[in-house]
Amino acid sequence: MAEKVTPRSEDYSRWYTDVVQMAELADYAPVKGCMVIRPYGYALWENVQAGLDRRFKETGHQNAYFPLFIPESFIRKEAEHVEGFAPELAVVTHGGGEKLEEPLIVRPTSETIINTMMAKWIRSYRDLPLLLNQWCNVVRWEMRTRLFLRTTEFLWQEGHTAHATAEEAEAEARRMLDVYTDFAVNDAAIPVIPGRKSDTERFAGAVRSYTIEAMMGDKRALQSGTSHFLGQNFARAFGTQYLDRNNELQYVWQTSWGVSTRMIGAIVMVHGDDQGLILPPVLAPIQVVIVPIWRKDAEKEAITAAIADLRGRLTSAGVRVRVDDRDDVSPGFKFNDWEMRGVPLRVEIGPRDLAAGQVTLARRDTGEKFPVPMADLAARVPGLLKDIQASLLRRATEFRDANTHEVSTWGELVEVVADGFARAWWCGSAECEAKIKEETRATTRCIPFEQPGGTGKCVVCGAEAREQAIFARAY
Amino acid sequence: MAEKVTPRSEDYSRWYTDVVQMAELADYAPVKGCMVIRPYGYALWENVQAGLDRRFKETGHQNAYFPLFIPESFIRKEAEHVEGFAPELAVVTHGGGEKLEEPLIVRPTSETIINTMMAKWIRSYRDLPLLLNQWCNVVRWEMRTRLFLRTTEFLWQEGHTAHATAEEAEAEARRMLDVYTDFAVNDAAIPVIPGRKSDTERFAGAVRSYTIEAMMGDKRALQSGTSHFLGQNFARAFGTQYLDRNNELQYVWQTSWGVSTRMIGAIVMVHGDDQGLILPPVLAPIQVVIVPIWRKDAEKEAITAAIADLRGRLTSAGVRVRVDDRDDVSPGFKFNDWEMRGVPLRVEIGPRDLAAGQVTLARRDTGEKFPVPMADLAARVPGLLKDIQASLLRRATEFRDANTHEVSTWGELVEVVADGFARAWWCGSAECEAKIKEETRATTRCIPFEQPGGTGKCVVCGAEAREQAIFARAY
Repeated sequence: MAEKVTPRSEDYSRWYTDVVQMAELADYAPVKGCMVIRPYGYALWENVQAGLDRRFKETGHQNAYFPLFIPESFIRKEAEHVEGFAPELAVVTHGGGEKLEEPLIVRPTSETIINTMMAKWIRSYRDLPLLLNQWCNVVRWEMRTRLFLRTTEFLWQEGHTAHATAEEAEAEARRMLDVYTDFAVNDAAIPVIPGRKSDTERFAGAVRSYTIEAMMGDKRALQSGTSHFLGQNFARAFGTQYLDRNNELQYVWQTSWGVSTRMIGAIVMVHGDDQGLILPPVLAPIQVVIVPIWRKDAEKEAITAAIADLRGRLTSAGVRVRVDDRDDVSPGFKFNDWEMRGVPLRVEIGPRDLAAGQVTLARRDTGEKFPVPMADLAARVPGLLKDIQASLLRRATEFRDANTHEVSTWGELVEVVADGFARAWWCGSAECEAKIKEETRATTRCIPFEQPGGTGKCVVCGAEAREQAIFARAY
Repeated sequence: MAEKVTPRSEDYSRWYTDVVQMAELADYAPVKGCMVIRPYGYALWENVQAGLDRRFKETGHQNAYFPLFIPESFIRKEAEHVEGFAPELAVVTHGGGEKLEEPLIVRPTSETIINTMMAKWIRSYRDLPLLLNQWCNVVRWEMRTRLFLRTTEFLWQEGHTAHATAEEAEAEARRMLDVYTDFAVNDAAIPVIPGRKSDTERFAGAVRSYTIEAMMGDKRALQSGTSHFLGQNFARAFGTQYLDRNNELQYVWQTSWGVSTRMIGAIVMVHGDDQGLILPPVLAPIQVVIVPIWRKDAEKEAITAAIADLRGRLTSAGVRVRVDDRDDVSPGFKFNDWEMRGVPLRVEIGPRDLAAGQVTLARRDTGEKFPVPMADLAARVPGLLKDIQASLLRRATEFRDANTHEVSTWGELVEVVADGFARAWWCGSAECEAKIKEETRATTRCIPFEQPGGTGKCVVCGAEAREQAIFARAY
């Protein structure tokens, strides 16, 4: 870690790639468009998974696993779906040394294969709702890739549910967006704007798509999770039916929703600074790193013993601790290294600390350093971690709010989306939306659930508009 | 669940498929050779994962994730490896609407891609050992498939490690086999025979392969986990080198090891009976099912309240409980249903139980039914689950031992492998091994670590033999 990351002000995109690689979150794979998630990045993903999985189970969902391969004919059954995904498909044409009769698609998403199974499993209203989720890899062929944000293969969870009524399915799609919002805000410390996607930004095959949008450190938007009300589109294409209470066959109403390893990219870009990562304590693989400082062997022995004791007490307090006892690098090197990796709290302990019965604590978020009596450390750390978590969320919220502006004229819109989020009345027409995209490179991120009420004038055409939308340049 | 499973004595293979499907562990996918793991089966797999993952982390391993796609040229770099896997590969030839310059293989295992990355990451002896694991899906084209036991796509974990010396790598391969043994015996209640694979049964590319072999209910063997000492075979093919303490470049020594969803098949076949699954309590997704029995609404109310209380107390005691409050099926139907699903303990509670302040407990393993005072239930259940766990292991061990025979003549060998495991002196020659396979359809399962010592006469050729091997027909 002798290298330094490129400053954000110099080249944000380069800064991002530097941080992801130097903090050893991920690396480029020798396969075009693919990445390798390294242990530190994967540990972060495991914590993301745990936070989401717990919430899915609490809301009654069960995990399952569906095949990686989807017969090409399945993808073709839902017209909008195949059109949306056709350019991104990876195709297996040979298996076991022979050419296949029908090519197999490597799943880009699993609505089609899951509907095939749901059509087999669902008999009556008693089998509904069917609330499934799977954790898996998916493949979408990408020309321009970026670690975590856009890769040909990525990891995600995809929830798939079937319901007896449109209302229930709609409520489920909204409930899961709430779950994502809760995770983003409380675990990832990322303030997100929940809302509806415009029709042009809808998922291919959905009736309505919902999204959580976050502002990155360069003021661009990142779609961080989506939830779709699928209506009966896939149910009709696959014959997914149930017998209702009157013994009549009905098509089910469905939803699907997903969060991917992209979330890691969001965490990097929302919280990181020119020293590297800053990880929210709830998700940080290592919450506290202890760095011993000593010169003489006699010092080492006493400090090592003190650290063993502190580590034990912190672990008992439920804190994820790492002791950096490397003997081939200096304490200063270690400080930089763990700052780069975004560990929320650093504990330094040297001979003078030991003599004074204290340690020196350093907060990654503020850079503050202060002494804490050794006896108090285990009791103090959980509160400090909470404080860091809250302060990261506050900081990110302030940054986003300071860079989000309500605009009412075309000129304001153009100016704001060059360096932030614009909130504007929009008449809902695809033409106005297209004009914004063409002339400003900003897209319709979402129509937020939170609306001022009343009506306004469309920022593009001046026609009456009943909703405001968020426009921004996006990843 | 009105259907009944085929009795084992009638058709074991049919019994297996019946149980897996009727207990809703898995289902056939509409894609040749693939399966769908249903929620109950996936919950079992999650418990298998948790038990293994904890042990991997305790022994210093870190999880990571490597790409699904491997360039065809990588697979070709290690001669034995490509020869072993060539007939089983699935090949992606098209991506993003275009023919690829180089076809991509869907990983059958990841030694090649992981070596490519290790060669990049490892610089000096300080980077060793590198102890990685990944949980993922792999694909091996199979002609004849069976749910969990042999499918084109399956889920597994694959550990990959790099070491400075042959001794360390060898010790690691053995350590991980010990971890698998510990998991099989203590979590899955499956007594396994740990040992070395014969040269012909070795993993393609390994120097030595270790295995744990288990006896299924039909007395056939199932390889339930393998660990390989890879020597420097992949390191030399991929240039995976490190600078040693003398600043000289050396090739690393490696291991790889894996357990797959096959373990679920083993659990089904080792413990199940003609009523269906019997799950070991440590892994059972539901350890206790509570079935209310009532006729009148007044009864229902009191019983529901009692059950809510019992459930709370069992949950607090760390027990995984499910209350079956379905109102469209009878208690008798529920009993059969949960027996089919192998839930270790059933709690029945009806008006008479309630009046007597007791519940009726039923053990899935023995069928025993006995009353327990309600006040004692939460305190009694953990001990009962332990007892069931121990009794399943004991029963499986007795069954295996009763059907394993030491043989010293060809005639005995032929007779024993027709219906059990044979333990015999073997000279180690591939010819003798081939003769056994051709004439009896039994294969060399392993050369157990536990040996009697001394020498004996090869059961085939009579030459001096220094080791005994286990021969059996296998899945």
